[in-house]
Amino acid sequence: VSYITLKWTFSLLIGVGTGLSAFFINISVENFSGWKFAATFAVMRHSYILGFLLYVLFNGALVFSSVYIVTQFAPAAAGSGIPEIKAYLNGIDTPGILLFRTLVGKILGSIGSVGGGLALGKEGPLVHTGACIASVLGQGGSTNYNVKWRWLRRFKNDRDRRDLVTCGCAAGVAAAFRSPVGGVLFALEEVTSWWRSQLLWRVFFTSAVVAVVVRTAMRWCGNGNCGHFGSGGFIIWDISGGQDDYSFYELLPMAMLGAIGGLLGALFNQLTIFLSSWRRNVLHKKGNRVKIMEACLVSLITSVLSFGLPLMTKCTPCPNPEKYPDVVCPRPSGQYGNYVNFNCHSESHYNDLATIFFNTQDDAIRNLFSTNTPREYNSYTLITFLVTFFLLALVTYGTAVPSGQFVPGIMIGATYGRLVGILVVNASNRDSVDEGTYALLGAASFLGGSMRMTVSLCVIMVEITNNLKLLPLIMLVLLISKAVGDAFNAGFYEEQVQLRGLPVLDSRPKRFMRNMSAKYTIGTKKVIQFSRISKVGHIVSVLRSNNHNGFPVIDWLHNGETVVIGLILRSYLIVLLQAKADFQLTPIPGDTRGRITFRYDVRDFAKPVSSKGVSIHDINISPAEMEMYIDLEPFVNPTPYIVPEDMSLTKVYNLFRQLGLRHICVVPRPSRVLGVITRQDLLPEVLEERAMVEEAISSRGRYEAPPYEEL
Amino acid sequence: VSYITLKWTFSLLIGVGTGLSAFFINISVENFSGWKFAATFAVMRHSYILGFLLYVLFNGALVFSSVYIVTQFAPAAAGSGIPEIKAYLNGIDTPGILLFRTLVGKILGSIGSVGGGLALGKEGPLVHTGACIASVLGQGGSTNYNVKWRWLRRFKNDRDRRDLVTCGCAAGVAAAFRSPVGGVLFALEEVTSWWRSQLLWRVFFTSAVVAVVVRTAMRWCGNGNCGHFGSGGFIIWDISGGQDDYSFYELLPMAMLGAIGGLLGALFNQLTIFLSSWRRNVLHKKGNRVKIMEACLVSLITSVLSFGLPLMTKCTPCPNPEKYPDVVCPRPSGQYGNYVNFNCHSESHYNDLATIFFNTQDDAIRNLFSTNTPREYNSYTLITFLVTFFLLALVTYGTAVPSGQFVPGIMIGATYGRLVGILVVNASNRDSVDEGTYALLGAASFLGGSMRMTVSLCVIMVEITNNLKLLPLIMLVLLISKAVGDAFNAGFYEEQVQLRGLPVLDSRPKRFMRNMSAKYTIGTKKVIQFSRISKVGHIVSVLRSNNHNGFPVIDWLHNGETVVIGLILRSYLIVLLQAKADFQLTPIPGDTRGRITFRYDVRDFAKPVSSKGVSIHDINISPAEMEMYIDLEPFVNPTPYIVPEDMSLTKVYNLFRQLGLRHICVVPRPSRVLGVITRQDLLPEVLEERAMVEEAISSRGRYEAPPYEEL
Repeated sequence: VSYITLKWTFSLLIGVGTGLSAFFINISVENFSGWKFAATFAVMRHSYILGFLLYVLFNGALVFSSVYIVTQFAPAAAGSGIPEIKAYLNGIDTPGILLFRTLVGKILGSIGSVGGGLALGKEGPLVHTGACIASVLGQGGSTNYNVKWRWLRRFKNDRDRRDLVTCGCAAGVAAAFRSPVGGVLFALEEVTSWWRSQLLWRVFFTSAVVAVVVRTAMRWCGNGNCGHFGSGGFIIWDISGGQDDYSFYELLPMAMLGAIGGLLGALFNQLTIFLSSWRRNVLHKKGNRVKIMEACLVSLITSVLSFGLPLMTKCTPCPNPEKYPDVVCPRPSGQYGNYVNFNCHSESHYNDLATIFFNTQDDAIRNLFSTNTPREYNSYTLITFLVTFFLLALVTYGTAVPSGQFVPGIMIGATYGRLVGILVVNASNRDSVDEGTYALLGAASFLGGSMRMTVSLCVIMVEITNNLKLLPLIMLVLLISKAVGDAFNAGFYEEQVQLRGLPVLDSRPKRFMRNMSAKYTIGTKKVIQFSRISKVGHIVSVLRSNNHNGFPVIDWLHNGETVVIGLILRSYLIVLLQAKADFQLTPIPGDTRGRITFRYDVRDFAKPVSSKGVSIHDINISPAEMEMYIDLEPFVNPTPYIVPEDMSLTKVYNLFRQLGLRHICVVPRPSRVLGVITRQDLLPEVLEERAMVEEAISSRGRYEAPPYEEL
Repeated sequence: VSYITLKWTFSLLIGVGTGLSAFFINISVENFSGWKFAATFAVMRHSYILGFLLYVLFNGALVFSSVYIVTQFAPAAAGSGIPEIKAYLNGIDTPGILLFRTLVGKILGSIGSVGGGLALGKEGPLVHTGACIASVLGQGGSTNYNVKWRWLRRFKNDRDRRDLVTCGCAAGVAAAFRSPVGGVLFALEEVTSWWRSQLLWRVFFTSAVVAVVVRTAMRWCGNGNCGHFGSGGFIIWDISGGQDDYSFYELLPMAMLGAIGGLLGALFNQLTIFLSSWRRNVLHKKGNRVKIMEACLVSLITSVLSFGLPLMTKCTPCPNPEKYPDVVCPRPSGQYGNYVNFNCHSESHYNDLATIFFNTQDDAIRNLFSTNTPREYNSYTLITFLVTFFLLALVTYGTAVPSGQFVPGIMIGATYGRLVGILVVNASNRDSVDEGTYALLGAASFLGGSMRMTVSLCVIMVEITNNLKLLPLIMLVLLISKAVGDAFNAGFYEEQVQLRGLPVLDSRPKRFMRNMSAKYTIGTKKVIQFSRISKVGHIVSVLRSNNHNGFPVIDWLHNGETVVIGLILRSYLIVLLQAKADFQLTPIPGDTRGRITFRYDVRDFAKPVSSKGVSIHDINISPAEMEMYIDLEPFVNPTPYIVPEDMSLTKVYNLFRQLGLRHICVVPRPSRVLGVITRQDLLPEVLEERAMVEEAISSRGRYEAPPYEEL
C-alpha cells in the first residue's frame, strides 16, 4: 500500500470511526434519558416522592458508572480532553491521553455523565474521542491489548501521528455538532499549533466523511430502530424560521449581549481556575474514593435542583392557540418538545422552568432557541435558572467524569440572551423581533467570552442553527465578547493548559523577549555533550544525572579542533543501550556508513505514543559492558537547527513555534559565511536545472542523516 | 494613537473602503447593463439590425473604456490580480501591483469589462481592489498624488503591510460574494503563505465590517435610489427553496460531476497557460495598440455570439401555469428574471438560450441555478452555450482588462451541471430531484477543478446559495474535482504565478530536496561580502556588479580571526550612500552605539511599497567621496538566520516558508555548542523568574540590532 493511499485510508477510517462513536454515544444518551424521564413522569402520576427518588437514583447510577470507569480504569478520560490535545499538538505528551483505554473510558464515561443529567456536554469529549481513534489507528492498534495490524504500523513518526490527531479533532467537532466546516476550522484555530496547507485537505475530507456517516446512521434511525432516539441527540437547533433581519437600533442590545458574554465568560474562566486548582491540590489528592463521592454528590445536587426548583414554580397558561397555531402546548406526554407540563394542575398549563431544567440539555437548548414563542419564559424563571445552572456548571467541571463545556456554555448564554430578548421585545413591540434569535446570540457571546474562538465558533453556531442570515450578527457578538473577555484573562482552554503546567508555547512571543538573547536562556549552565566515541558507563551516568532529552555530539578534526557532528536524543541512546548491539571494545571509529539500516528498524527509534517509554533506570548493564565504547555517529541528527548566541529570543521563539521544534543548539557567532541562500535558490525549477544533483549528494560527506524526524 | 488602536482602525477602514468600492462597482455595472438591455430591447421592436448595432456599440464602448484606462494609465490592473497578491504575500513584490493608480484602474476597468458583457467576473478584481485599498491606507496615502496622512504613516514595515493586505483580500472576497466567512478562509487557504493566529481575528473583523457596509448600502438602494440596481449585482443565488435531501443513488451522478469538473478545470488551466504565454511572448509585446484592438475584437465576438446564437434558437412554450404557479413566463419587459422573451413570436414563449446568454452573468447564473423549473433548458441549448462560453472565457482571460475567473467558472460549471441534472431527472422521474441543485454542484466542481481550493470555496458556495444542507454534497464534489484536477496540473493561480516567473515558494518542499544540502545551492559561487569598514568606492562597485539583496559583513578580532557581524541589505546600503552622512575619512571604527537613531528615521530604511525604489545607478558619488570609508556595523542585522552547510534543503525550505525569510546565511559546521534551548526554556514564566533580565540585556554586547524586520 502506498504511503499516500494509506494516509487517505486513515482519514477515511478516522471519519467513520468518529462518526460511529458519536452516533453510539448519542443513541445511548438519548435512550437513557428517554427512559429516565418517561419512567419519572409515569411514577409521578402516583407519587411525587417515588418519582423524585427514581429520578435521583437513575441519575446517580449513571454518574456513578461514569466516575467509576474513569477513576478505576481510564484516569486520563476525565475532563474535556481538549487542553491535553492542544498541548499534544503543540509538542507536549501527556501520559495516557491517547491510549485505547482512554478512548473506551471516554465513550462510556460520556454516556454516563451526560445521560446522568450533569451540567456538562458531550462535545469536548467527542473531540478527545476523535483524537484517540486517530492515534489508536495510527499506531496500528493497542500494544497493551495485543490488537495490532501490521500493515498499519508505518506511521510511527511524530509528524504523521500529529496529522492524524488533527484529523481526529476535526472529526470530533464535525460529529458533535454535525458541523463539518466548523470542525475543520476548530482544528485550525483552536487545536493545532502549526499547520500545513496540505493537511487542510485531508482534515476537510475526514469531516466530510463524518457528515455522511452521521447522516446515514440517523436515516437508519428515522425508521424507529433506535428507541427514544428521535429528533434530539445530534444537536441541530434549527432556527431558520426565526428572525432573519434586524433594525439598526437592535445592534445596541446585541452589542450589550456581547459585553455580558465577555464578562460572564471571563468570570466563569476565573472561577474554574480557582476551583480546578483547589481540586488538583487538595481534593483529588485524597484518592479515588473522594473523587467518586464528589461526583455522586454533584449528581445528587443537580437532581435535587432540577427536580425541586421546577416544583416550586407556578405554571403558566398555554399561549392562545388562535394566535400561535403552530404551538403544541403542553407537549404530549412521552414525547419531546416544548412546553413541558410538570406539576401543573390544569391540562392547558405548562411549567416554564421545567421546560428548560427538567429535560435533556439538547432539548432545553432547542426550547430556549425556539422561535415564534414570545413570552414563553418568565424573566424570574430565567434568572433563577441562569444563576443555578451557572453554579452547577462551575461545580461540575473538574469532577472526574468526561465533561465538555460547549453545551453548558450554550445553556448559560441562551438563558441571558433570552432575557435580553424579552427586554427588547417589550421595548420595541414589533413582531419581527424574536426572543429565540437573542438566545442564539447570547449563546454565541458566552462561548466567545469563555473560549475566545472566533471563526470556528461562528461557523459552528451557523451550522448548528442552520441560519446563515444571522452570520454578521454572530460575528459582531463574538468580536465584542472576545475583546471584553481578553481584557480579564486568557481563554478557557489556555487557562486549563497553564493550570496543568503544560509547557505550551503561545502563538506569539512576549514583548520582553525582544531584549533577551539566546545566550540568556543558557545562563551559566555548562552544556552537557558527548564525544563521538563515548564510554557506555559515561553515557549511563550522564543520562542518570539529568533529564535532558537532547545532547550535542562532538568530534575532533585532525588538527585537534572540535567540530559538532550533531545532536543525539535521549530516546536513541536508550535504545542503543538496551540493544547493546553497537558496543565495541576499542574507542576506534569504524566505517559506519549504512550499517544501522541492517541492525535497527526505523521504528525502534520512534517514541511510543503517550506512554513514558523505557527509562534509563530500567536498563541493566553489566560492569564489563560499562567499560565498552559506543560510536554515536551513525545515530545523531547531523544538522539540528542552530542559532547564534546573540539572536534575540523573539526570533528563537518564532523558530520553535513555526517549525514545531524541540531542541535548538546555540552556537558561537560564526567566523565566516559560505554563502547566502535566497528564495530564488530554492525554486524547484532552478534546482532541477542544475545537473549536478548526484555530485551534490555524494559531496554531502560523512554525516549521512539517519531517518530522523524533528517533531 | 496607540499601535493596537491603529491596527483595528485600519481593519475598519479597509472593510468600509472595500465594501463601498464593491457597492460602487456593482451599482455601476448593474446600471450600465440595465440601460444596455433596456435600450436594445426597445430598439429591437423596430429593427433587429439597429438593436444589434446598439448592443455591439454599447459593449464595445464599455470594453474600450476599460482597456484604454488599463493600458494607458494602470497596466498592473489587468487580469485577476490574485496571482500577484499571492506572490506579494509570499514575499515577492511585483512592481506597481498595489499603487493608488492600480486601484483606480481596477475599479473603473472592472466596471467597463463586466458592464461590457465580456466572459469574465468582477470577483477576482475585487480581491485585488481590497488589497490595494489596504496597501494605500497602510502607506498613508499615495506619494505620487500627494495624498498623505501623517498619523497613518506608522505602518512602514513589511510585516504590518502584509497583514493589512491579507485583511484587504478577505474584505474583497467578503464583498464580492457577500460571504464574510468565505473571505476569511480564502485569505487563509489561497492567499497567505504564512499565517499567525492573531491575524485571524482582525481578518474576521474586517470581513464582518464589509458585510455590514454592503448590507446597509443595499438597504439604501432598496428604496429605488439606485436605478437599475435591483436584486442583481451582489451575487446571492438563493436556492434555499430547492432540493435539500438526496438519495443514495444520486451520489453517482454527483461524483461524476466532480470528475467532469476536474477534467474540464484542468483542461481550462492548461489552455489558459498556452494562451497566456503566447500573449506574453508574442502578442502583448507589440504594444498597447494591439492590446486595445484585441480587447475590442473579443468584445465584438462576444456581442455577436450572445446576440446571434439566441436569435437562431427556437423559442419554447412557457411551462404550464397551473403546474408551476410560481413561474412568471415570459418575464415582463424592463425587469429582471427568468424566461426571457427574445425573438419569440408568441407572447407565451421564451428563448432558453437568451435567458442565459443575452443577460447579465449574475442573472444568467441565477437562472441556471433556479429551482423548481424543470425542463426550462433544452439539452442542445446548454451544450451550445457550454462550448461557446468555455471558448469565450478562454479567449477573454488574458486580455488587458481586469478579469476574474469565478463567475465564468460558475457559468461553465452550472451549465454542464444542469445538463447532468436533466439526465438525472429523466432517469429518476422523481420530483425531489432538482436541476438547480445539480447546476450548483456543477459550478462547485468546475471551480474546484480549476482553482483547487477546498474549504474556502465550499464555504463561499454555501454562503452565496444560502443553503447549508447541501454542504456535504459540495464537499464531496470539491474533493473529487480537486483530486482529478491535481492529477493533470497545478491550480489556476499557481499556474499563473509560475507563468509570470514569480519565485513563489510552494507550501511543501519537493521530494528531491531531501537529498540536497544547503551547500549545494551555493555551488562554486564565491560569497560576496563586506568588511565592517568598507570603502565607498568598493561598495558602489560591488552593488553595481551584481543584484544581490543581502551581503554578509565581517570583522576581524584581535587575534586576526574573522567573525561575521551580520547581514546588510542592499536597500540599507543605498540609503547610506544616498545620505552620505556616515562617510568618514579614515578606516577607524568609532563608538557607533546609538548613533543611528539620531541621524536616520526608521522609515528611511523601509522599502517603498511596490515601486522599484532607488537604484544604485541613480546615485551620484564624487570621486573624492569614493575614496572615503563607511562603518557598516550600526546598520547590519546582527543575527540573520543561519544554517550549517550540511543541512538538507528540505529543512532550509521549511525555514524559509514558515518564517517568511528572504535570506539565510550558510555557515560552516559549528565547532562547539554553547547550549541547547528547549521549549521549557522559552516559557514566559520561566524567563520572568530569572531576575537577571537587565544583566542579560547589558551582556548582549556590541551588536545591538537596528530596528530591523526580516520580511
